[in-house]
Amino acid sequence: MKGNAEKQVYAALDKFKIELPSWGFADTGTRFGKFFQDASAVDLGDKLHDAGLVHKLTASCPTVAVHVLWDFKAGVSPKETAKLAKKHGIKIGAINPNVFQDQCYKFGSFCSPWKKAREQAMSHCLDSIKIGKEVGSTLLSMWLADGTNYPGQDSIANRWAMLKAAYRKLHDAMPRGMQLLVEYKPFEPAFYHTDIPDWGASYILAKHSGKNAKVLVDTGHHLQGCNIEQIVTLLLHEDMLGGFHFNDRKYADDDLTISSIDPYAVFRIFDQIEQFMFDTGKDPKLAYMVDQCHNLKPKLEAMVQTVMMAQDLYAKAAIVDRKKLAEAQKQADVTKAERVLRDAYETDVRPIVEQWRKKNGIPRNPLKELRDSGIIEQLGKERNAKRKALGISRGGSFA
Amino acid sequence: MKGNAEKQVYAALDKFKIELPSWGFADTGTRFGKFFQDASAVDLGDKLHDAGLVHKLTASCPTVAVHVLWDFKAGVSPKETAKLAKKHGIKIGAINPNVFQDQCYKFGSFCSPWKKAREQAMSHCLDSIKIGKEVGSTLLSMWLADGTNYPGQDSIANRWAMLKAAYRKLHDAMPRGMQLLVEYKPFEPAFYHTDIPDWGASYILAKHSGKNAKVLVDTGHHLQGCNIEQIVTLLLHEDMLGGFHFNDRKYADDDLTISSIDPYAVFRIFDQIEQFMFDTGKDPKLAYMVDQCHNLKPKLEAMVQTVMMAQDLYAKAAIVDRKKLAEAQKQADVTKAERVLRDAYETDVRPIVEQWRKKNGIPRNPLKELRDSGIIEQLGKERNAKRKALGISRGGSFA
Amino acid sequence: MKGNAEKQVYAALDKFKIELPSWGFADTGTRFGKFFQDASAVDLGDKLHDAGLVHKLTASCPTVAVHVLWDFKAGVSPKETAKLAKKHGIKIGAINPNVFQDQCYKFGSFCSPWKKAREQAMSHCLDSIKIGKEVGSTLLSMWLADGTNYPGQDSIANRWAMLKAAYRKLHDAMPRGMQLLVEYKPFEPAFYHTDIPDWGASYILAKHSGKNAKVLVDTGHHLQGCNIEQIVTLLLHEDMLGGFHFNDRKYADDDLTISSIDPYAVFRIFDQIEQFMFDTGKDPKLAYMVDQCHNLKPKLEAMVQTVMMAQDLYAKAAIVDRKKLAEAQKQADVTKAERVLRDAYETDVRPIVEQWRKKNGIPRNPLKELRDSGIIEQLGKERNAKRKALGISRGGSFA
Amino acid sequence: MKGNAEKQVYAALDKFKIELPSWGFADTGTRFGKFFQDASAVDLGDKLHDAGLVHKLTASCPTVAVHVLWDFKAGVSPKETAKLAKKHGIKIGAINPNVFQDQCYKFGSFCSPWKKAREQAMSHCLDSIKIGKEVGSTLLSMWLADGTNYPGQDSIANRWAMLKAAYRKLHDAMPRGMQLLVEYKPFEPAFYHTDIPDWGASYILAKHSGKNAKVLVDTGHHLQGCNIEQIVTLLLHEDMLGGFHFNDRKYADDDLTISSIDPYAVFRIFDQIEQFMFDTGKDPKLAYMVDQCHNLKPKLEAMVQTVMMAQDLYAKAAIVDRKKLAEAQKQADVTKAERVLRDAYETDVRPIVEQWRKKNGIPRNPLKELRDSGIIEQLGKERNAKRKALGISRGGSFA
Repeated sequence: MKGNAEKQVYAALDKFKIELPSWGFADTGTRFGKFFQDASAVDLGDKLHDAGLVHKLTASCPTVAVHVLWDFKAGVSPKETAKLAKKHGIKIGAINPNVFQDQCYKFGSFCSPWKKAREQAMSHCLDSIKIGKEVGSTLLSMWLADGTNYPGQDSIANRWAMLKAAYRKLHDAMPRGMQLLVEYKPFEPAFYHTDIPDWGASYILAKHSGKNAKVLVDTGHHLQGCNIEQIVTLLLHEDMLGGFHFNDRKYADDDLTISSIDPYAVFRIFDQIEQFMFDTGKDPKLAYMVDQCHNLKPKLEAMVQTVMMAQDLYAKAAIVDRKKLAEAQKQADVTKAERVLRDAYETDVRPIVEQWRKKNGIPRNPLKELRDSGIIEQLGKERNAKRKALGISRGGSFA
Repeated sequence: MKGNAEKQVYAALDKFKIELPSWGFADTGTRFGKFFQDASAVDLGDKLHDAGLVHKLTASCPTVAVHVLWDFKAGVSPKETAKLAKKHGIKIGAINPNVFQDQCYKFGSFCSPWKKAREQAMSHCLDSIKIGKEVGSTLLSMWLADGTNYPGQDSIANRWAMLKAAYRKLHDAMPRGMQLLVEYKPFEPAFYHTDIPDWGASYILAKHSGKNAKVLVDTGHHLQGCNIEQIVTLLLHEDMLGGFHFNDRKYADDDLTISSIDPYAVFRIFDQIEQFMFDTGKDPKLAYMVDQCHNLKPKLEAMVQTVMMAQDLYAKAAIVDRKKLAEAQKQADVTKAERVLRDAYETDVRPIVEQWRKKNGIPRNPLKELRDSGIIEQLGKERNAKRKALGISRGGSFA
Repeated sequence: MKGNAEKQVYAALDKFKIELPSWGFADTGTRFGKFFQDASAVDLGDKLHDAGLVHKLTASCPTVAVHVLWDFKAGVSPKETAKLAKKHGIKIGAINPNVFQDQCYKFGSFCSPWKKAREQAMSHCLDSIKIGKEVGSTLLSMWLADGTNYPGQDSIANRWAMLKAAYRKLHDAMPRGMQLLVEYKPFEPAFYHTDIPDWGASYILAKHSGKNAKVLVDTGHHLQGCNIEQIVTLLLHEDMLGGFHFNDRKYADDDLTISSIDPYAVFRIFDQIEQFMFDTGKDPKLAYMVDQCHNLKPKLEAMVQTVMMAQDLYAKAAIVDRKKLAEAQKQADVTKAERVLRDAYETDVRPIVEQWRKKNGIPRNPLKELRDSGIIEQLGKERNAKRKALGISRGGSFA
Repeated sequence: MKGNAEKQVYAALDKFKIELPSWGFADTGTRFGKFFQDASAVDLGDKLHDAGLVHKLTASCPTVAVHVLWDFKAGVSPKETAKLAKKHGIKIGAINPNVFQDQCYKFGSFCSPWKKAREQAMSHCLDSIKIGKEVGSTLLSMWLADGTNYPGQDSIANRWAMLKAAYRKLHDAMPRGMQLLVEYKPFEPAFYHTDIPDWGASYILAKHSGKNAKVLVDTGHHLQGCNIEQIVTLLLHEDMLGGFHFNDRKYADDDLTISSIDPYAVFRIFDQIEQFMFDTGKDPKLAYMVDQCHNLKPKLEAMVQTVMMAQDLYAKAAIVDRKKLAEAQKQADVTKAERVLRDAYETDVRPIVEQWRKKNGIPRNPLKELRDSGIIEQLGKERNAKRKALGISRGGSFA
């Protein structure tokens, strides 16, 4: 790798920031159950601690996404949460309302035939906007579980109309400088139709909501075969891409750690973003966020590993020889154009990323540092003790 | 079935018209080869004859979609073609340009890095608009094979920009009263990215092209699991649905006869259209078209069978008890709402459709009539003789 | 429909029995949570009651599959359970061990790298065999959640070897007359590899286990596009099909009620079984079982509806004109052969099934009967009171 | 990379041989048409020349798979072909009969309801065995296009029975030392059912045929999401894996160059094979073969690129630290085990592969060498002249 590459990687990593999800440090699982970890976060304090630790190790995660239902409590000022985050060296990032867990959301939230559910959803989201304002967040990240399980169960059209009205209302309730991110997902937990199934629906919803609404791409929320990097490119050039939820998957929304299944696919997404900036000279100001939640890997390890993989793949995207690529594309020289892209991907950027870390005063290998430090074991003991003290028992059954 | 149902089915079938594709009467196949039929159409005359025959048997197919490259010849006035169609009791419907067969389209048409390809595509499509004008067609149906096979092969963004410009130009070149239909397809013949991969891309393209552009849904052009009836509903309510290419599929774009794999899915599409008309009182003026091209069934049989299946399923959609359905949906009575839909689907409408046919002076069982008539055998002899006279030999090899 | 059809439907329904799962009456959900029903079963008594009620209404469900972990308790003799079932007019059917819920199964059961997990799984399954023996069950139905989430996580080969050894041991521990059913599933809850991913693996495992092992087909456990009826046919003709878990799905293992998404597909499975019996004169003695667990429909309604759909579709398969079909197939008359199959499918068999019900002294419309009876509301009250008395509170959170 | 890695890569590449398909140098395309290349092979001589050239450049391709229908001609002794291959520095590898192109195969070959088709298929395959014997081939590679397009079209069971009988007959007709490879494919060109849809069916067929029959895995012949490396592992440990057809794909059987879409997936296959050899000490004697046939890249470039990618990925699989991996797996240390695998994958092995090439007296960058040599342009001129001389015109139309 030439000196130029080093410069490109450094510049790319200096600007590359990826937000961590508070729920990524808590116990999660599948419908068949959860496997509990000693060191999983018990409360918001733990989550902010863990996010802060990951940022300390990687220098790429200055913000943490919070989940209103799970992270905020009545009677506790959101400002306290912001302070606590600051104490851990991070800031509050995207605000995620929850309009799927309460029993009233059985048939949906904004799309439910139950007026009560629609009202509760609206009230919760308006509260979330207020919380966001108080903690200084600029992102309202909306994911709905709304949908139906059976053909005929409900009117797709009525639900769509109610949804459009609700999102516009949310949009208009946001303070200046806040952005509404419109996430989509083809299925799960709804298994016949999801009210926002794909980027096309998100695009229309965002357009209808207003100029501060953009599309959020969760890399696990597509049907098999979908070319995600093309969606990214089209949204970028239509000025409608707001950000990402990153994770990897082989089958459905598997929520595995980034690039664990298909690293080349993640690289191609980063490549399209770098290409956009190269072509237009614009910074699309995307919100990169992690959204993973499976539970075989220790939570902290999984998060550090994911951030490192994202850094590596972003670094690879930064060293694509874009002039050479454009030239080969212009000549319709398929083999050469592909090779230019692959040359970057096949380059082992780890040594240069390590140097960047050294330069930034962080461990050369954050994952090794984390594992060697014994902190996970220590947190496990502390948090088990805390659970005991609080009388928290963990369980659950499929049926 | 009550008398009301009879009335509903009659009304539905009276208005239900589905266009036949001229290429559906010609020999087609897979990349592994074609299996030739004696009675397949040799020339445009044969195609119009066959389309006329299907209309005569079914009373639902007054128009035929034509394919500019295969059906029109330099030196022959399109008006002659229109006259010939009239002779067979039908009219010319959608005009389909071909911008994929010529060797210049190796890397695409409007999206090709080759200027010559882009120019030839534009010229051919402008000619197609002229032909459409001359034959009195109101539909320009655009399907592109454009795409790439390898990551990096070409700039997705540049291609998108060129595509938008080209479609707007086509839109503006159309005479008053003509509509541009923007078809999408996720893959094949391009296997990495297709320039118009899904309805979201078609929607944006159509919006950008102008008010006479709408989206065309080909039922075989979706990734596995895609909820097509939802796309139909969203497009209807956004006033952006132009029409359909109907066929069935189990795996990819298999182009099988309608409903042969999943009849309930076709019913659900028709149901959403009927629901839209019930809810809004508007007629969306959709162009229903057949687009099937596989070759194990005799061409004429396959077409008559397809039209009959479409009639049956449309009739089922017409007898859904929409008041009862709306009521059950409002009450979130999932089981009941689903049952209302299924009651219509499970009803055997064939006897009532037969009565409608009798009333319209056509055979009660058009497929049986066709098979019993011996006409396919007779056409086979005539067309084999014609091929011999014209010196046409049929062949081809995978490699 | 002619008198012959009536006879065929009656004969088919007389012999068609489908087993209910005890867990199908309990609260279940997705990883995003459960929506609780008042009338969901609190304990095994409730489950047996509900299964008995469904049998009373449909006359097709004389047995109930039980789940060892959830349904049996230390200190309670399994014989008591058998008696309780008898009281509700049913018998205990398949025994389902649970080797996925305990925390020790984090990395699998028989395939876990943890010896303790493998031993606990073996011990539990041997206990299950004993329970089966005591309650007079003839089926040991094995589903494993074993698999890995990340490439490299574990040795696929070692796991396979341990699995083969374990299943053979289970096979050899079964009493005479008991059958081992080997279920497969491509993914969920494991998201990189599942130790028994498909019917090929199940076939090899069953063959290796011994002559009393056969393959179990769960209709929701296949990749998109998979032709399930072909698997059924191949297994039947290789004498290796043991039974079914029926449910429907559009995307993944959605566990919806039978035929709610693709009724024609279920019909084709039944058709292949009827065809096998017609061709060979053999009764394959298949264990038909329901396995559905989603929670928008009231549990009892969902179960009755599923049984009714299965009856209807089985009845349709029974009236296929198999001589005419064989003849058309022999002549390679594709259109005709398909039409013969479709004629049966498109026939509305509901009136004849209603007559069969009347003849059997059960309600003509069991679903309507159930809904009109008010029993679900009544059970809801009783079971809520029972929960209160037992101090059961229901909850759970995604993260 | 340490010295050990160098040794491992050298040893791996010394033994890694991958066979080229003669048809990979000829014009191929999609059902929408072929894009012709000047330098594509006109006849068998050209194909052997090109295969020889690729071997000269890469040192990994000493054999070429031939296609009986396209490569052998009545009146020309197969021995002449073997001599011609020798002249080009290569040998004849697998023999591929063609039982899909002739019009008689409209409804299948060994599974056709037409006796004539079955007989012609058998006769052709027996001839192919003779040819194989004469040219010294040890592999009979069978791929069938057999299947049906419509439910009901034909008896799946009858076809399966005829297929089993035919393959056993072929097996028994093979000379000592020849192996029957049983390929499977889920769909295309058949779109409802394929007679050998998956590895389970291939396994049963091969077992039934006899001890010299094994399964062939074509990497493009699986449903979306399928874990191919697991199939490889299971077949290896059941001693039933015969070989591979390599290519890459994103959607269906796209036949793109190796690893162009998902390089990590190819690596994982090679990893499982290396793991098998490490675990058992056995050499599974697999037949690695390329089977790609798309036509945007120049044929020779595509082939050289594919071989280079296979070499790189095989080299990566060779440097996995298998002791460390086994240890981490034993400890259920998910993160570490995954990292061990990824460390090898992320290593840039290109420099060491280049050294191996240098050591073997071949160009360090075979693709660059090929492109710089001007030979493709020169062959283009020569072959165009040959076509002209022979009166060959190239064309074809979708419909």
